[in-house]
Amino acid sequence: MAGIDLNADLGEGFGVWRLGNDDAMLGIVTSANVACGFHAGDPAGLLRVCRLAAERGVRIGAQVGYRDLAGFGRRFIDIAAEDLVADVVYQIGALQAIAHAAGSMVSYVKPHGALYNTIVTNHDQAAAVASAVYLVDTTLPVLGMAGSAFFDEAVRVGLHTVAEAFADRAYRPDGQLVSRKEPGAVLDDPAAIAQRVAAMVSSGQVTALDGTEISVSVESVCVHGDSPGAVQIATAVRDELEAARIDIRPFC
Amino acid sequence: MAGIDLNADLGEGFGVWRLGNDDAMLGIVTSANVACGFHAGDPAGLLRVCRLAAERGVRIGAQVGYRDLAGFGRRFIDIAAEDLVADVVYQIGALQAIAHAAGSMVSYVKPHGALYNTIVTNHDQAAAVASAVYLVDTTLPVLGMAGSAFFDEAVRVGLHTVAEAFADRAYRPDGQLVSRKEPGAVLDDPAAIAQRVAAMVSSGQVTALDGTEISVSVESVCVHGDSPGAVQIATAVRDELEAARIDIRPFC
Amino acid sequence: MAGIDLNADLGEGFGVWRLGNDDAMLGIVTSANVACGFHAGDPAGLLRVCRLAAERGVRIGAQVGYRDLAGFGRRFIDIAAEDLVADVVYQIGALQAIAHAAGSMVSYVKPHGALYNTIVTNHDQAAAVASAVYLVDTTLPVLGMAGSAFFDEAVRVGLHTVAEAFADRAYRPDGQLVSRKEPGAVLDDPAAIAQRVAAMVSSGQVTALDGTEISVSVESVCVHGDSPGAVQIATAVRDELEAARIDIRPFC
Amino acid sequence: MAGIDLNADLGEGFGVWRLGNDDAMLGIVTSANVACGFHAGDPAGLLRVCRLAAERGVRIGAQVGYRDLAGFGRRFIDIAAEDLVADVVYQIGALQAIAHAAGSMVSYVKPHGALYNTIVTNHDQAAAVASAVYLVDTTLPVLGMAGSAFFDEAVRVGLHTVAEAFADRAYRPDGQLVSRKEPGAVLDDPAAIAQRVAAMVSSGQVTALDGTEISVSVESVCVHGDSPGAVQIATAVRDELEAARIDIRPFC
Repeated sequence: MAGIDLNADLGEGFGVWRLGNDDAMLGIVTSANVACGFHAGDPAGLLRVCRLAAERGVRIGAQVGYRDLAGFGRRFIDIAAEDLVADVVYQIGALQAIAHAAGSMVSYVKPHGALYNTIVTNHDQAAAVASAVYLVDTTLPVLGMAGSAFFDEAVRVGLHTVAEAFADRAYRPDGQLVSRKEPGAVLDDPAAIAQRVAAMVSSGQVTALDGTEISVSVESVCVHGDSPGAVQIATAVRDELEAARIDIRPFC
Repeated sequence: MAGIDLNADLGEGFGVWRLGNDDAMLGIVTSANVACGFHAGDPAGLLRVCRLAAERGVRIGAQVGYRDLAGFGRRFIDIAAEDLVADVVYQIGALQAIAHAAGSMVSYVKPHGALYNTIVTNHDQAAAVASAVYLVDTTLPVLGMAGSAFFDEAVRVGLHTVAEAFADRAYRPDGQLVSRKEPGAVLDDPAAIAQRVAAMVSSGQVTALDGTEISVSVESVCVHGDSPGAVQIATAVRDELEAARIDIRPFC
Repeated sequence: MAGIDLNADLGEGFGVWRLGNDDAMLGIVTSANVACGFHAGDPAGLLRVCRLAAERGVRIGAQVGYRDLAGFGRRFIDIAAEDLVADVVYQIGALQAIAHAAGSMVSYVKPHGALYNTIVTNHDQAAAVASAVYLVDTTLPVLGMAGSAFFDEAVRVGLHTVAEAFADRAYRPDGQLVSRKEPGAVLDDPAAIAQRVAAMVSSGQVTALDGTEISVSVESVCVHGDSPGAVQIATAVRDELEAARIDIRPFC
Repeated sequence: MAGIDLNADLGEGFGVWRLGNDDAMLGIVTSANVACGFHAGDPAGLLRVCRLAAERGVRIGAQVGYRDLAGFGRRFIDIAAEDLVADVVYQIGALQAIAHAAGSMVSYVKPHGALYNTIVTNHDQAAAVASAVYLVDTTLPVLGMAGSAFFDEAVRVGLHTVAEAFADRAYRPDGQLVSRKEPGAVLDDPAAIAQRVAAMVSSGQVTALDGTEISVSVESVCVHGDSPGAVQIATAVRDELEAARIDIRPFC
């Protein structure tokens, strides 16, 4: 039986502030990308979400980002590579201890927001993130985009890479994502998204925004959880995959 | 041959800002209490000091504090116990990864500043810190004051405690430190301090501010390194101990 | 015709994070206590809420707090008086410029959270806040609790004080608030709260938790807006006051 | 008699951390670019330096920067224009209140670090900074580089611009600064720097790194104060200007 991992960003509140519905999403996904305190996530909130993830058997990944609470890690920062290495090491370690205190562990690393986008093409920052993961634990897989500078650098240092596809994002013919600034970049119909994900997982193919059929590497599917609509979409994706007899399970 | 550990606070800069002379102090002490980012310490600076400590064979401890860069962790914060647990877990984990990346490890935990002072008497916060250490690693020793609420709580959860004495601080007849707000609280003559430490280590006795001879538990001696004068004092302490044929070595 | 001011805390998000329903509350209150960035409030969010307040003719107050985003300013911090003076001056000035850029101005100052509670009794911090307000603008009124250390100190330096009552908080026989940690401290029935406020405003009397009738000084009534239920309560209060022919208008 | 303004960055510590010798520099310069809390500067430290500046009759400017304490505002941040407008308004207002509390006022605005460099060419961020200054006070001059996008945008909204030259930085033939990453970018001989500044001020000409004579607009000269050597250089510049009978006085 075919299988696929579902991942989502969780633990992205800070202090009194909450974002998204962590509780609902933990009933849907198999991998939780938990914030590490730099773009979001106060330690007590991280411990709560890690405990919930542990209870529900959802795997925990370290969602590392730029140090930018005010910008939620969504703004590119021209940080020196050696500083970025240390920032990423620090974040992973912090979440490792939190996850351990919750009775679980950090099983992978996924960059967040502007850092994620930057290291699709920026080799200096990509190499910094890869070497940081390697310094912490040479066996930690990284979750990201196939064909990215990040994966090149991760492979170079010997890390295991796990390719993800995006449930609700339009693709360009070259396999990259359509920028959020362009029309049609984000899909919003739950049924259409769910069918597209099921097809993508079954066939490894997706229709790009211009109608081209392209191949996508997909060992995990990223779903969003930061709005009521998003939870509905994630649920539809899960239901459709189950209906297609595709097992929802963590990547190995 | 008798032996004693010397510890000092290091890594307490932030970004461009530096504090104290980490380089000089790493040639004097056997245990480095490295900041963890909440009261001081950006990750790149922490990685640098951990690498230096690793090179010189100086042991690394996690110096955990309140989240208060503006106040350098020197202001009491009435934080809820469950939040403090998570803050301490987070900090230790972050430094563990940094120390590991530097080729070393975190060998003990020492609270900083107002947190240190608070948990001499505040059992809620003391229990929070103790349980945080325990959650991270049940075998991590804690460095602090004998007779403190912190040691009570640490012993209660099964942690190993290591008692420290202060090279340059006056003691009250009850074995507690004279408050910095009172006259005579801080000693500043290198030769006098050095002789006092050597006597304290040899005999387990120290003269309190009022002239009383009191007993002190001392498995480690805390020296300061945040001024040129402080480095001179620490050097005098080390020289005096060596002259007294007391081995300077990490606590076990 | 009798009149009363209604005030509420607004602008208490940070970056992507939002808290409460600023938009709804600006249709209810006459005075908006806008956060100043230390316990909550990023500048862009503050500018948005000040623009909305300006459009709707709602007066802006500077809601100053401890520097503690992680704790939302709800944790006592033992900050030195001279540091608190500067922190409060800084916050008021920042909001003054934001309010000015929005076409309005800061018309009063109200302390937030743990700072508010602390300076009911702590004269050092109370004097610091009062002198900070005075340093910025000797004509700025302060909003707070009658009988507090804060009002004593504000009067001492010559500030105008405006006494507020709390719509949904139980009172002790001595006129202070019942601690949130005690049962019955917070009322939640909209109709009961609304009638209580109308009576309090009309008669200057309120029934304390133990049944005693006590006098309260009330030139403004504080309503909350950080939950759907809170908006409903605030609306009920406003409706009840209007039904009682009490004019809802800013304090002078 | 000819005259020139000397400006330097001050107030750039944070909490316990200090940077440079504010005290010495306040005896040399006529304009102090005081940090505003986003790249450096805690309120109490800012109040101290503003009081010193007020005592010595040194004018205060608001040195606005990116929100990045860890990077000291030296890293480009891809912040949205509307967020940058609010960040700059907030910072200027905060320093206005601090300067007022110190018995002085903010007399101009100068961007810091990566923000300064970015808006030499980036029109979106340049326009954001210009419009922020304008929103706070249409009469506030801005200090920066002639020929920059920032000056274009400042002129467009009607702000007064003041052109500065750099005492210790090499120029390119096109009048821009040689990047710090290139050899020869920073001069370090006090006597040579002092003579160069005096010539630049007298003649409006400077020798670029490649030997070309170029014209520079110079209504103020920026000197640095963040090292003992820097204070020595600034002193040499002041002495040389006085020897050349050039009056050291604030720009008007």
